[in-house]
Amino acid sequence: MEEKTSVPALDEILGKQFKILDKGFIRVIDYMGDDSSIVQAARVSYGKGTKSVSEDEGLINFLIRHKHTSPLEMCEIKLHVKLPIFVARQWLRHRTASLNEMSARYSIINEEYFLPDEADLRYQSKRHKQGGDGTIDTETASGIREKIKEMSEKCFAEYDDFIEKNDLTRELSRIILPQNTYTEMYWKIDLHNLFHMLHLRTAPGAQKEIRDYANCILHEIVKLWVPICYKAFINYRTDACHFSGLQMEQLKGLLDKEKVTEFIEMNSKKRGEMRELKELLEKLLGEELKVKSQEDSDKDKINS
Amino acid sequence: MEEKTSVPALDEILGKQFKILDKGFIRVIDYMGDDSSIVQAARVSYGKGTKSVSEDEGLINFLIRHKHTSPLEMCEIKLHVKLPIFVARQWLRHRTASLNEMSARYSIINEEYFLPDEADLRYQSKRHKQGGDGTIDTETASGIREKIKEMSEKCFAEYDDFIEKNDLTRELSRIILPQNTYTEMYWKIDLHNLFHMLHLRTAPGAQKEIRDYANCILHEIVKLWVPICYKAFINYRTDACHFSGLQMEQLKGLLDKEKVTEFIEMNSKKRGEMRELKELLEKLLGEELKVKSQEDSDKDKINS
Amino acid sequence: MEEKTSVPALDEILGKQFKILDKGFIRVIDYMGDDSSIVQAARVSYGKGTKSVSEDEGLINFLIRHKHTSPLEMCEIKLHVKLPIFVARQWLRHRTASLNEMSARYSIINEEYFLPDEADLRYQSKRHKQGGDGTIDTETASGIREKIKEMSEKCFAEYDDFIEKNDLTRELSRIILPQNTYTEMYWKIDLHNLFHMLHLRTAPGAQKEIRDYANCILHEIVKLWVPICYKAFINYRTDACHFSGLQMEQLKGLLDKEKVTEFIEMNSKKRGEMRELKELLEKLLGEELKVKSQEDSDKDKINS
Amino acid sequence: MEEKTSVPALDEILGKQFKILDKGFIRVIDYMGDDSSIVQAARVSYGKGTKSVSEDEGLINFLIRHKHTSPLEMCEIKLHVKLPIFVARQWLRHRTASLNEMSARYSIINEEYFLPDEADLRYQSKRHKQGGDGTIDTETASGIREKIKEMSEKCFAEYDDFIEKNDLTRELSRIILPQNTYTEMYWKIDLHNLFHMLHLRTAPGAQKEIRDYANCILHEIVKLWVPICYKAFINYRTDACHFSGLQMEQLKGLLDKEKVTEFIEMNSKKRGEMRELKELLEKLLGEELKVKSQEDSDKDKINS
Repeated sequence: MEEKTSVPALDEILGKQFKILDKGFIRVIDYMGDDSSIVQAARVSYGKGTKSVSEDEGLINFLIRHKHTSPLEMCEIKLHVKLPIFVARQWLRHRTASLNEMSARYSIINEEYFLPDEADLRYQSKRHKQGGDGTIDTETASGIREKIKEMSEKCFAEYDDFIEKNDLTRELSRIILPQNTYTEMYWKIDLHNLFHMLHLRTAPGAQKEIRDYANCILHEIVKLWVPICYKAFINYRTDACHFSGLQMEQLKGLLDKEKVTEFIEMNSKKRGEMRELKELLEKLLGEELKVKSQEDSDKDKINS
Repeated sequence: MEEKTSVPALDEILGKQFKILDKGFIRVIDYMGDDSSIVQAARVSYGKGTKSVSEDEGLINFLIRHKHTSPLEMCEIKLHVKLPIFVARQWLRHRTASLNEMSARYSIINEEYFLPDEADLRYQSKRHKQGGDGTIDTETASGIREKIKEMSEKCFAEYDDFIEKNDLTRELSRIILPQNTYTEMYWKIDLHNLFHMLHLRTAPGAQKEIRDYANCILHEIVKLWVPICYKAFINYRTDACHFSGLQMEQLKGLLDKEKVTEFIEMNSKKRGEMRELKELLEKLLGEELKVKSQEDSDKDKINS
Repeated sequence: MEEKTSVPALDEILGKQFKILDKGFIRVIDYMGDDSSIVQAARVSYGKGTKSVSEDEGLINFLIRHKHTSPLEMCEIKLHVKLPIFVARQWLRHRTASLNEMSARYSIINEEYFLPDEADLRYQSKRHKQGGDGTIDTETASGIREKIKEMSEKCFAEYDDFIEKNDLTRELSRIILPQNTYTEMYWKIDLHNLFHMLHLRTAPGAQKEIRDYANCILHEIVKLWVPICYKAFINYRTDACHFSGLQMEQLKGLLDKEKVTEFIEMNSKKRGEMRELKELLEKLLGEELKVKSQEDSDKDKINS
Repeated sequence: MEEKTSVPALDEILGKQFKILDKGFIRVIDYMGDDSSIVQAARVSYGKGTKSVSEDEGLINFLIRHKHTSPLEMCEIKLHVKLPIFVARQWLRHRTASLNEMSARYSIINEEYFLPDEADLRYQSKRHKQGGDGTIDTETASGIREKIKEMSEKCFAEYDDFIEKNDLTRELSRIILPQNTYTEMYWKIDLHNLFHMLHLRTAPGAQKEIRDYANCILHEIVKLWVPICYKAFINYRTDACHFSGLQMEQLKGLLDKEKVTEFIEMNSKKRGEMRELKELLEKLLGEELKVKSQEDSDKDKINS
């Protein structure tokens, strides 16, 4: 008889608030599946054919390395998130998730807005349109922060007047609330699509505020939930590098051929990613190495 | 502290094989969420605004009646299904699901094929291109069944030869296997998309073989899993009728106005779907009823 | 040789700004497919089997009436939309579309915000949490409008200071901009998913501001693009009514049986939706009608 | 005034049959967008902020290199494809497309089945479960091919009997047709999702038969349609290599540090992917280079 999957390490933090930013949080509400569910689904695909792949970790590494991502969809997680609207707007660009957000048409919004730390106020980058360069001096930063606070309070005061004094509809009252207003949502997604979102939103180019949420999900939650996948994700996505065809041409010329030849020999019986690296290097330096080994054998002949 | 949702009635059948067709089955492998998860997600949307909606069943009925389906996405179920390829091909048209199917490139396929019951062999309908009309006489049916068996066996014999004698690749050997060959898959979907699939595949126009699977999922599994949603689905989808604008025009003329007036009066204080029916009827017969009640009051004046 | 589909009536308005709200707009940028593309795709499904369905309009009506919606996905449209953020947030809940929105991380936002007409300022409804009841008196409305203007201006003034004086990152400066700030997007969707969105967002329960956009798309754009589908949509979705199983039970009791019998007789040879209505009524009143006609024929015997 | 996008080179082949396998084909039916549509959509995102990115090709390269793929979704193509069922089953795993396939419930299937070339019959690979190793000897191959033909003909003969003699429903008659039976579909997808599918299905691990279709779409169709994207796809996807964190550790040790230092100096003012490679190498060899340059400067001191 089957049993529902259960991950004791994750069960322990169910419902716990991970605090993010000044007033936000992430809570795990529910989940389905674990590392073994991925193996189970992969095995139905490969059926009898993979009896030889004995180890779960090897199989998961293989799947993630080769982007056979459909078995990752077999795991699902549901979070309760409190976050500023401008972060929610970035978050919702990830369309392959299920979502219920607090409605400002139905509900009266609490006066809760995001106030950044002074240390996070940065000068507009000249080079990257979307980022910052260098922390703003304390005095200016303090002034900016004060103004964000003041402005947010004024907006909420007006909002309250609209709602309470003027009895204006909630749906129109809220239009003057600023984008740092906090909202809440239940958000449910499968592991494959979650990894895609986390890859983009933990990257250095993502805005710091959404990165805080993404890093918490990755390092505090996913790590407990599916530890084998987590390690594979770090190795094959976070720490990985991608070289274009043109860049590979360059890279080829930058290799130390002796060391490469040595590496190929030493790894001739390895499996998994080291074998694949070996094969790639062989292919990359193929002709040159062949010539070289021809020369070597010529030399050998001569020497013998 | 939160706990993972759990539905004891469904836990009892986890892993159990529901037999479908001659050799197929459906097994529930895992699930997430229950009726209360839908309510929970809906309440975050409507926030404080819905404190007055006290009853879960009322809220779920409201959501399903008005197609506010996003909270239904908060429930997820994972099935293990064994089914003939021609059924799988219909099933996979539902794209909003996750799936791992047995691969005939990796695995050697067992000799298992679907052999229909004689009683299910029907004459091609003249009127509906896609269906059947009337059961084929026993003798012919028996002959057809025998031929399906014979043909399937021959194909499998050839397949085995290709694999074992000729050592031909599995990926090409399988191309002569017939479409009644059984395959297996893990299939995971949320409740909203499942309901959409079940609505289409339990309908009388669906092919009998996929209907058997859909009916099992609906009446044996969903009923245990989310009983309130199940009842709402039957009432608002299965048993519901949809009238076009033109049909409504006709329907208007077929109503018994006295009975309608009486119904409107008797349901003046109802809530939920009876109120909505009342409001629809009022709108539908609006002018005529107004005229009528004017005449009535005129009569009343005269009579008094 | 095939040619790209082209709809002259739609070509004429390509790029034209349909003005929505005070500063918003919708422009058609590009499109693919027309009514005939739907027929073409449907015919590949039904192949030889449907040679008899000679008329395109009949086939499209059939498809939309019976929710065979996949051929509608064969048509695609791309719009350029300028809209306030609070409208964009509702719009983006429709996930089955492609989207590129102006980024306030990259760009400096122009001082453009939505200012509602006084006539659209309404009192919060007591009954429906999400809507309004009755227009607010002119004086109060004028005051509210003035305050929305004042508040929006203040926010933008602060935003400009952050950007220009303090050189704060754009991505953080924008967090105090209100939700009535205008944004722009390119938005691309297929006809099936567009119809789903339009059905929800032209409904009376949708917020007035998004309804304005949805109505423009439906009645100004879709009507020109796919006129047969447009008519079918109005008849089978906008003007249609949906009765639950329980409501159908009630409805049955409200019919005038004589008129129904007459209707059934008169429509005995009709096709399409009138035949389907006839069949539904027959089923609905089946037993009673049978009994009745038995009585009638008994009477006839007596009378003869 | 806008105009519909049009790509003359693609218009010329609209409707043309590209022959694939023995009886299959691909035809372009319609399309929307071109390279410039991607630039247009990307520019709305980055707004004023990217006025400086003057060149379309540079922007497209940037988008594809950094997986900012949403603007690619702005292009859409519709194909008419004839293909064997076992290929269609692989094809349909790509769920983010629209599709209308010939229905064997509605239509009578023509006797058309895929018969592989003898040269494509290969021995089952011992190492890769899903592939082949080495071509089967001519005589055996000829025998296999003959048997596939014979078996397919028998299945079709039985099918015809079921349909014509027994008047069995089409939907059940077809269950004995083999998986090499040809089917047809209209298939519509956006460029981002098409690239994902083509990346997987042109890879060496994909089955030869679907690779033939994928290569035709990529090199005969996409190349004409969006030539800039095509080149970027080849460079950043097809020819690209992906190194895991562990592999990068190894790679670091295999570099020729002198050549790397030289490369970094020579590319100090490059833009685009060469700058990014330079930055990556700097980061990769950072400490060592620093140490080295320290040593160098020490040497310099000594030498001076």
